[in-house]
Amino acid sequence: MLNQSASLDLLFQALADPSRRAMVGRLSRGPASVSELAKPLSMSLPAVVQHLQVLEASGLVRSAKVGRVRTCRIEPKALRTAEDWIAERRTSWERRLDRLGEYLAEHPDEPNPASKP
Amino acid sequence: MLNQSASLDLLFQALADPSRRAMVGRLSRGPASVSELAKPLSMSLPAVVQHLQVLEASGLVRSAKVGRVRTCRIEPKALRTAEDWIAERRTSWERRLDRLGEYLAEHPDEPNPASKP
Repeated sequence: MLNQSASLDLLFQALADPSRRAMVGRLSRGPASVSELAKPLSMSLPAVVQHLQVLEASGLVRSAKVGRVRTCRIEPKALRTAEDWIAERRTSWERRLDRLGEYLAEHPDEPNPASKP
Repeated sequence: MLNQSASLDLLFQALADPSRRAMVGRLSRGPASVSELAKPLSMSLPAVVQHLQVLEASGLVRSAKVGRVRTCRIEPKALRTAEDWIAERRTSWERRLDRLGEYLAEHPDEPNPASKP
């Protein structure tokens, strides 16, 4: 298993491409075959398969072949991992702002603590 | 101004590196100078500046120079943009699962609609 940091590298890398985001967007509405994924994208099937491999390596998508059709599904846990990483940093910043606002409300005449080193 | 898709490319690309995520993590706890950002990272100052440029180009970080010190701050709106994109796909998938669950509860004897093409 990959460590947390390497997983996040692959997750964000996978999401950094518009075609792969389009594939994730399509799969968020339900499972799809590789050719269904390829249909709205103006690229060759091998190019789509390559993007799919990046998505699978990141854990965002899983696929299984039944007969001649490979069906792809989204892996919501992986989306959640990336989302949570961002949300934790954003809320950490917002809590800091809240504390600063409270401090300033309670100490209107003192210098701003944020300006100290 | 970059279009939405190009912005997301830069945002997720910026987050796909462990050193840049460490810098975002540090800045989520408050503004910092470039040398403060560099301290916990085992890399040269020029390398840190290069990562900082990627973060600034993505909109995740802003910096301003006062005297000889460049102070960096996080841009929570950019974090939110990336977070929202992921959250929308995840909730789209979860709503679909909920609808499927309701359908199956109401139609226990009918075939699974998800198995139809």
